[in-house]
Amino acid sequence: MVRWIDATQGSFKETFAAFLDEPRGEAGDVAGTVRDVIADVRKNGGEAVARYTSKFDRLTLDPVTLQSDNVDLAALAAGCPADLREAIDFAAERIAAYHEKQRPVDHIFKDASGVELGWKWTSLDSVGVYVPGGLASYPSSVLMNTVPAKIAGVDRVVMTAPAPGGQLAPAVAYAALKAGVDEFYPIGGAQAIAALAFGAGHLTPVDKIVGPGNAYVAEAKRQVFGTVGIDTIAGPSEILVVADESANPDWIAADLLSQSEHDTSSQSILITVNKDVGKAVEEAVEKQLKSLSTEARARQAWESHGAIILAGSLDQAADIANTIAAEHLELAVEDPDLLLPQIRHAGAVFLGHHTPEALGDYVTGSNHVLPTSRAARFSSGLGLADFMKRMSIQRASADGFNALAPAALRLAEAEGLPAHARSVSIRTNSGGGHG
Amino acid sequence: MVRWIDATQGSFKETFAAFLDEPRGEAGDVAGTVRDVIADVRKNGGEAVARYTSKFDRLTLDPVTLQSDNVDLAALAAGCPADLREAIDFAAERIAAYHEKQRPVDHIFKDASGVELGWKWTSLDSVGVYVPGGLASYPSSVLMNTVPAKIAGVDRVVMTAPAPGGQLAPAVAYAALKAGVDEFYPIGGAQAIAALAFGAGHLTPVDKIVGPGNAYVAEAKRQVFGTVGIDTIAGPSEILVVADESANPDWIAADLLSQSEHDTSSQSILITVNKDVGKAVEEAVEKQLKSLSTEARARQAWESHGAIILAGSLDQAADIANTIAAEHLELAVEDPDLLLPQIRHAGAVFLGHHTPEALGDYVTGSNHVLPTSRAARFSSGLGLADFMKRMSIQRASADGFNALAPAALRLAEAEGLPAHARSVSIRTNSGGGHG
Repeated sequence: MVRWIDATQGSFKETFAAFLDEPRGEAGDVAGTVRDVIADVRKNGGEAVARYTSKFDRLTLDPVTLQSDNVDLAALAAGCPADLREAIDFAAERIAAYHEKQRPVDHIFKDASGVELGWKWTSLDSVGVYVPGGLASYPSSVLMNTVPAKIAGVDRVVMTAPAPGGQLAPAVAYAALKAGVDEFYPIGGAQAIAALAFGAGHLTPVDKIVGPGNAYVAEAKRQVFGTVGIDTIAGPSEILVVADESANPDWIAADLLSQSEHDTSSQSILITVNKDVGKAVEEAVEKQLKSLSTEARARQAWESHGAIILAGSLDQAADIANTIAAEHLELAVEDPDLLLPQIRHAGAVFLGHHTPEALGDYVTGSNHVLPTSRAARFSSGLGLADFMKRMSIQRASADGFNALAPAALRLAEAEGLPAHARSVSIRTNSGGGHG
Repeated sequence: MVRWIDATQGSFKETFAAFLDEPRGEAGDVAGTVRDVIADVRKNGGEAVARYTSKFDRLTLDPVTLQSDNVDLAALAAGCPADLREAIDFAAERIAAYHEKQRPVDHIFKDASGVELGWKWTSLDSVGVYVPGGLASYPSSVLMNTVPAKIAGVDRVVMTAPAPGGQLAPAVAYAALKAGVDEFYPIGGAQAIAALAFGAGHLTPVDKIVGPGNAYVAEAKRQVFGTVGIDTIAGPSEILVVADESANPDWIAADLLSQSEHDTSSQSILITVNKDVGKAVEEAVEKQLKSLSTEARARQAWESHGAIILAGSLDQAADIANTIAAEHLELAVEDPDLLLPQIRHAGAVFLGHHTPEALGDYVTGSNHVLPTSRAARFSSGLGLADFMKRMSIQRASADGFNALAPAALRLAEAEGLPAHARSVSIRTNSGGGHG
């Protein structure tokens, strides 16, 4: 049974707050373990990485090259079926086209006092893409993390993915080559993050690490943040659907289950203003669950973390959606354009009845790496700018300098920074001098 | 004595790598202490915050309001001298004008298959601005962190600053009111970060925390990252000056010392292609140090972490500058426009002889919150977009859906996600149906 939450009741605020606070996913303290692994890799380099890989992935690595004779990316990619290659090519090209439109522009302007100001964008030199093993080893994730990096102009994209016993999905290998991965190492876990951040064997450090992973990988990214850049720390996946009478309950049920099936900690929520729509979706979910090969984990996710929220109006539905700040938000309503202006917090918004989230997961070209666990309140999905950075540029003429100098001097004095003040006053007093 | 590094020698690569790896600032393990403080605040709320504030800041707080009768922002601001207020107003208005130019634009486009794609920017609802106490309590930092948040449209800007014994700089109080701070709490340290992230007493949680702080504050931000957004973790300040014969050694010396005086772990580096320029700057630094009230810490920083690097050419100087990826980079050369295209990694670049870093610290309008400790390799200075986020928007028509469906279906099947596949196939098979 999925829970129902009635937003028209006086107790809604408390019920809803408690619902939002419920933990999902691993809560164990992994920080200590991760700290030890990172220290070990920093101290022992490739030897440590090879040791962990042997232990956790039953894979023998050369501690210098961090490669295994049993894992060859090109050979693996050759095993990817032709029709799947075509789908990967199609997705890669759409992702490339979409992210090309996000290219930020340099801007320099001169202000009233003759000071030139602005900024210039440059790409990162190197990026590490972490690809999880097991359940979550997806070619689509490889594309979503790698294609924008290459479009941004990143010279060196390094991919790591654990290959337990030498196993790696051929589609993942093909996607890596298609996307333009420059180096690949069959390693995973906190040891892979440590190797990407600090270097190990032939793997030299990268500047930023992106890509999802389990709790150990997430904690390792948190611990190396500062030494390298990281993307947002990913939590379990989520979908929120706002549906009115125009929605097809079977379609909505399928969309809700497309998140529930990811993981037992995934969350699928329906908000509707119509109780009958809610009931019809609930029944459709139950019916569809039974024919799903992923039923066990989808059912557990739906029954533990799912909810059907009955809202008093579409306005209230928008408010609730903003509070949830879901990774994926479908507006499966008659007129989504009426509702969209009220939506402030979501990773990605899918409008109308023919835009199931799965379309965006794979092929619209929009990035599927999106903020989870309410992080859409403060962060964006992955984009081209995540692989670039903005240098600010400033130039004062002698006149421009004179216009700004007095205020700078006053502030430097107030802050008790005499050398700051002198770096201004020395140019004021020296007459022309150099320059 | 400051160290000299000769980049024209064969041993440069190793010498320089060792120099870059030298630790600066506190290296102690503060993670455990910070974890305890955060857990305490999460459990005990305002009572814990008041207890730490009493202990570390000798200030009695009401555990519910987190306010003290001895700290009143408006009363403190009234003590700020008129000419200093004018300088703060001047800076605030320039910062506002600059960041207004950074406003990102929404973009929606329709692609060849009839799919609408794009993005929409919205501001964060709430932001916490941490202002350090003691040496680093600067009105300019209040402006740099708060003005862009308000320009971005953030409704609720919450400032925290420790007020030991009730002391808070009047200029900090005035800058807070000028910049539009909505709530203020006289608290600091890891307990302030915990209160901002999880709430305590009347302080309800914010969505993102920005602002510099000591090692405890930095670690607390790292630990709450994910629950809230954070800016880059700030390290000790840095300046790198590239100077040729056209530079005035006295001016360069003043600029180098303007960073050295911040903190004993600050770093000031000169790169020059001319040994005589290097010697003249070295002498000027020595002379200026002697008349500086901040001599003790400036000298320690300069002698421990400073360097004069002799480069073989301006091209090599640019390469070295890119490797250092300094927070502040001055191009004090005859023709900075010739050198700028080679600069890829720096927080802010100051061109020519009349743009000392201190101008940008205070009044050009550009943000002075910039990546330190080589983080300019992967991150940008603070900007308007740090207080906004991008929601991706997608809408497929029935035709657009049909164009994308086969590839999405193939990928969902390959990834072993049957509910994803069904959310696509159910719309393909159902004929018209709804929508």
